[in-house]
Amino acid sequence: MAEQKKMVEAITSMEVDFAKWYTDVVKKAQLVDYSSIKGCTIVQPYGTAIWENFRDLLDKRLKKCGHENVMMPMFIPENLLQKEKDHVEGFAPEVAWVTHGGNEKLTERLCVRPTSETLFCEHYQKVINSYRDLPKLYNQWCSVVRWEKTTRPFLRTTEFWWQEGHTMHETAEDAITETKNILDIYADICEQDLAIPVIKGKKTDKEKFAGAEATYTIEAMMHDGKALQSGTSHYFGDGFSKAFDITFTGRDNKPHNPFQTSWGMSTRIIGAIIMTHGDNDGLVLPPAVAPTQVIVIPVAQHKPGVIEKATEITEKINNFCRAKIDISDNQPGWKFAEYEMKGVPLRLEIGPKDIEKNQCVIVRRDNREKYFVSLDNLEEEIPKLLETVRQGLYNKALENRERRTFVAHNFEEMIKLGQEQDGFIKSMWCGDLECEMKIKNEAGLTSRCMPYEQETISDVCPVCGKPAKHMVIWGKAY
Amino acid sequence: MAEQKKMVEAITSMEVDFAKWYTDVVKKAQLVDYSSIKGCTIVQPYGTAIWENFRDLLDKRLKKCGHENVMMPMFIPENLLQKEKDHVEGFAPEVAWVTHGGNEKLTERLCVRPTSETLFCEHYQKVINSYRDLPKLYNQWCSVVRWEKTTRPFLRTTEFWWQEGHTMHETAEDAITETKNILDIYADICEQDLAIPVIKGKKTDKEKFAGAEATYTIEAMMHDGKALQSGTSHYFGDGFSKAFDITFTGRDNKPHNPFQTSWGMSTRIIGAIIMTHGDNDGLVLPPAVAPTQVIVIPVAQHKPGVIEKATEITEKINNFCRAKIDISDNQPGWKFAEYEMKGVPLRLEIGPKDIEKNQCVIVRRDNREKYFVSLDNLEEEIPKLLETVRQGLYNKALENRERRTFVAHNFEEMIKLGQEQDGFIKSMWCGDLECEMKIKNEAGLTSRCMPYEQETISDVCPVCGKPAKHMVIWGKAY
Repeated sequence: MAEQKKMVEAITSMEVDFAKWYTDVVKKAQLVDYSSIKGCTIVQPYGTAIWENFRDLLDKRLKKCGHENVMMPMFIPENLLQKEKDHVEGFAPEVAWVTHGGNEKLTERLCVRPTSETLFCEHYQKVINSYRDLPKLYNQWCSVVRWEKTTRPFLRTTEFWWQEGHTMHETAEDAITETKNILDIYADICEQDLAIPVIKGKKTDKEKFAGAEATYTIEAMMHDGKALQSGTSHYFGDGFSKAFDITFTGRDNKPHNPFQTSWGMSTRIIGAIIMTHGDNDGLVLPPAVAPTQVIVIPVAQHKPGVIEKATEITEKINNFCRAKIDISDNQPGWKFAEYEMKGVPLRLEIGPKDIEKNQCVIVRRDNREKYFVSLDNLEEEIPKLLETVRQGLYNKALENRERRTFVAHNFEEMIKLGQEQDGFIKSMWCGDLECEMKIKNEAGLTSRCMPYEQETISDVCPVCGKPAKHMVIWGKAY
Repeated sequence: MAEQKKMVEAITSMEVDFAKWYTDVVKKAQLVDYSSIKGCTIVQPYGTAIWENFRDLLDKRLKKCGHENVMMPMFIPENLLQKEKDHVEGFAPEVAWVTHGGNEKLTERLCVRPTSETLFCEHYQKVINSYRDLPKLYNQWCSVVRWEKTTRPFLRTTEFWWQEGHTMHETAEDAITETKNILDIYADICEQDLAIPVIKGKKTDKEKFAGAEATYTIEAMMHDGKALQSGTSHYFGDGFSKAFDITFTGRDNKPHNPFQTSWGMSTRIIGAIIMTHGDNDGLVLPPAVAPTQVIVIPVAQHKPGVIEKATEITEKINNFCRAKIDISDNQPGWKFAEYEMKGVPLRLEIGPKDIEKNQCVIVRRDNREKYFVSLDNLEEEIPKLLETVRQGLYNKALENRERRTFVAHNFEEMIKLGQEQDGFIKSMWCGDLECEMKIKNEAGLTSRCMPYEQETISDVCPVCGKPAKHMVIWGKAY
């Protein structure tokens, strides 16, 4: 059938055109559709289900260590956005402005939140009075808007969905600890649940968040060697709390300004999942966020008892995993291709001969390995196989990153690597913006982070020859 | 301590000033804070936790019958909003307009969605081609904005949070069935989970949704006798699908327009919970959505072993309910008042004497009944008591509604009841707008719905004396 063929028509090979491959996968796995508003996408059911699974996993981790969700307004009055100087400079050029409510012109413009530091600060100013009110560990799940010039589904869209945590603490030390703890949670969810290896580090001043004292980041490498910033955690010191006049009575009975953090992960992480694990047959989903973990496909389903047995198995395994059955009249071959494109981690095939032998065939999406499994052992074997898929995905991604990680001992090497390779390039750095800009302009590399795990490649900055202060990982960013 | 006192200071009695009582409860139970944007509220952690519990309960029910979540853009281009005549007339006067993105003026204004029929239709136009693509059963959880003149927390706010379902069907019959099935789900969640009795019915043409052919509603009665529309489900026919040129190839191989529904419940339901169950000591929460179902309060907690035992019990009961312990150094009496104000359904007290007897005291929030429960029976008794609370709340609300429901046989009775009573007034109606308006203007009553369960009060319309077509429930609305 023509319709069937259309569904599984080949996607552009990633070796031919990685960007085109990405868009093909996004469209054909039905993750996203474009809306008529520039840069705004519609996240379709399959994409939304992945996001909801991610949300539930992260939300649980955040609540476990005391974070509470709130729901803040989507608008920020212009004067509120302007209260913190660096912050407004960073965001004002890219916000959407509401000027009219109903038929009336507003006396003050409202921007649609690009991020909500200012809104949280305004609220905290009212509810924080004593050290007993601290810490405040608030988070919200919402969408934000940044008027982007060039957009790509999940990676950079005018509106995107995220969580934004905003916390207030009694001491700078507490706030820094929170900033780093959150980064650990982000790294953990990436590595454990999404099977994406990440590098934890600190951003250079040039790359830090508007208004922050320090920005910490987790950086992942995509299949094509490009870098994707996958989550950030910011330490603000007491800059905002001074600007917003937030004070509390301390243990010493004197007024103090609390110390602040903010941190976020967004729907961009779905882009990271696609570009880390996907292949030329489509999406490959890590089991923890896959809307369907096991797709059950009856073989020779017209034969008596096959659909019944396959349905029975689906119901049974649904008790310990997310399983679905496809009993449509499409051919098994078409179904195989369809669920491969959708990245379902395991395919369970069962036909008359399998039923006779009390077994089924399970095929892994990540490497096509085939297993014959007794129908009596599904409860043990499926969770084991899902974990094997996760481990396999992680290892493959780690291998890719290691293969594409290079060391530059001097500036010539950096330029050469920058021209010839997409990947992570490690080098020393003196800490000066000038050298960072030179690397950007001449080698085409931006600093990803100063990783927690520092190495000593040499004693000097490869650009200026002055003493090196940090090892930096450079790359080409999405 | 001054701070402690402030926390539990008396709230306005509901008999003195119901509106003030409501605002006091909302503020003192820390459900909502005001933002600096007119009519926009901040939903604080406790309010958000109630909303999330509600969301999870409803979302599960919707997914069970095949609905899928999506995430749509928050903006609607002006020309898109205008495509359906009645719809734009209903909403254009109350939308917020975005006119600038970054520093540039937009070529076309965008409104912040007041509801998303038009966005769903634009998407459906692209993805519906064949009868095989139907039904489409999409839903989204998001916030929407309507520029309201007078606002009250949860009941009417400029921005509010909701779910909006938008579905497309092959036949009118299928769409009408969906509209009614959703109303059943809404009624079920209100009665079973929120313990709020509701009346299911159809809105009069005057009260139906802008652009809909028919609007179905669930109407609840608040403690003061006023009516609260708690959820609506709309049948659109093929009006939007024609306006948006959505066609599919039918089983007859000919082009057809699909039939549409939309439906929503919002954070307004939290207002309904407060005003249905609350009392002069604060909130009373139905167990299904209570963030904390059991608060454990150690008595004489300085005595050896008390906190340890209370903590052990909390951990144990957390396996089958949402429990918390308060071991702060506030007095037990203060704690009692605090958690009563927060509406926690059960309080579990345990002191040295209880421990000796291997028992604890459990007190119901709704009626203060006290139970001595053996520590060995908590797993049986707590779920039973929570169910008793739910049943108690439901019965009390139902009694209130029955006590405040009146029958009007003629127009004089309607006017008298309208002046003297807040409640539901049943009367017959001829179906003419003129009579509906006369009842509104002279008796101060708006039609709530034509209930599913019709009764015959008389044969004629009390206003004009013409033959009656429906029994209508009238009331004073929030």
